[in-house]
Amino acid sequence: MAEDLIYGINPIKEAINAKRDLDKLYVVKSSQAVTNLANKAKAMGTPVIAVDERRMDQIIGEKVVHQGICALVSQVNYCDVTDMLALAKEKGEDPLIVILDGVQDPHNLGAIARSAEIMGAHGIIVPKRGSAPLSGTAMKASAGALNHIGVARVPNLASVLDVLKNNGLWIAAADMGCPDCDKTNLTGPLALCMGSEGDGVSRLLLERCDIKTGIPMQGRTESLNVSAAAAILLYEIARQRRG
Amino acid sequence: MAEDLIYGINPIKEAINAKRDLDKLYVVKSSQAVTNLANKAKAMGTPVIAVDERRMDQIIGEKVVHQGICALVSQVNYCDVTDMLALAKEKGEDPLIVILDGVQDPHNLGAIARSAEIMGAHGIIVPKRGSAPLSGTAMKASAGALNHIGVARVPNLASVLDVLKNNGLWIAAADMGCPDCDKTNLTGPLALCMGSEGDGVSRLLLERCDIKTGIPMQGRTESLNVSAAAAILLYEIARQRRG
Repeated sequence: MAEDLIYGINPIKEAINAKRDLDKLYVVKSSQAVTNLANKAKAMGTPVIAVDERRMDQIIGEKVVHQGICALVSQVNYCDVTDMLALAKEKGEDPLIVILDGVQDPHNLGAIARSAEIMGAHGIIVPKRGSAPLSGTAMKASAGALNHIGVARVPNLASVLDVLKNNGLWIAAADMGCPDCDKTNLTGPLALCMGSEGDGVSRLLLERCDIKTGIPMQGRTESLNVSAAAAILLYEIARQRRG
Repeated sequence: MAEDLIYGINPIKEAINAKRDLDKLYVVKSSQAVTNLANKAKAMGTPVIAVDERRMDQIIGEKVVHQGICALVSQVNYCDVTDMLALAKEKGEDPLIVILDGVQDPHNLGAIARSAEIMGAHGIIVPKRGSAPLSGTAMKASAGALNHIGVARVPNLASVLDVLKNNGLWIAAADMGCPDCDKTNLTGPLALCMGSEGDGVSRLLLERCDIKTGIPMQGRTESLNVSAAAAILLYEIARQRRG
């Protein structure tokens, strides 16, 4: 499961105040306190769903005092780009951020999160639209890594690249047929952009990238799986950083 | 689909003479020619299944002149260890062979085949028992690589290590916490041994390995996925070979 269930006015008030990412908020229209929390959650972009008492009991799955409100809380460690940069600074490391430009398969998303966390990345950026969901499947494939590495969902990847560039990061795109990654300088503050399974990094992003690099390939198979390619590039970056 | 269907006495005679790996042979006991082929297939270890005309039509899925015999032919490029060594010699390359010691998940098996073929490996060895099946799932995950890289299924991995050693290969095991792969000499004739998802390389094989090497890890996630680890190690081997 990629989600926890919480219920009751105080637990949900605390979750909202702590800015935890609520995937869904269910309310029985009953009290002013519930309505206030629903409004706050809506303002944060959480879908708020009105249900009746019976449905509320079904969702919670046991008889509890829910006070007319419950929420699904993502276990994914959502954050924003400034959190990632702050984490790198706190650790005294050059930022390393992974950008997933339309990875479709939650297995791949989870597997990349797993490799990224292990290779020392400070966060993952995915687009709000067109990305694999951060589902239970992704969570399972990540072997828990999605609890440990921050994920930012952004409306527009291109404008995030500008933010990263303004913070001194180089943007590197994985692109087949480009200069070999082990012959490319990948040290320093870096964002690594991986494209979708079928099409690679979109042209819109490719144009904005400072570095384009590929993995040397032999054989007759057309391309590496995106999560294998990400693992290799993240390993190569970590290798170069160790010097 | 990991299997092709062929039918008729001549096509199946040719397949048997070419030593193609038949997954199953279906026969309607009808003629001496069919019985002869069934006996040959049995001698090669192919399961032979007697069916009636109606079942035969179901298996083939259309009305054809099947002459009372049809077979499922694996698309997987089965071969034996000597074929792999011969291929490396023919290419003028140091042999690079991947041994999968009990990888359970056909997705992982396929993904590793994909990375191995791209990184220039000459074959994959799996145990006859305790390995993920070379199924349609594995074939799909390999993105066709299983058509291009030879796979040997062997009854006993430990004795294959002896054969490889006698042919001048070093045996390297992937083992967490062992010296970093980029600080380990992985050039020269090599077999890379990857363990199962849960347990890594079995102790029986570990004891027989010449080299034990690991991937440098940071972060809080316990381990890399086996297919990510294989991709990284195969990349590192290819990188060292390029020099």
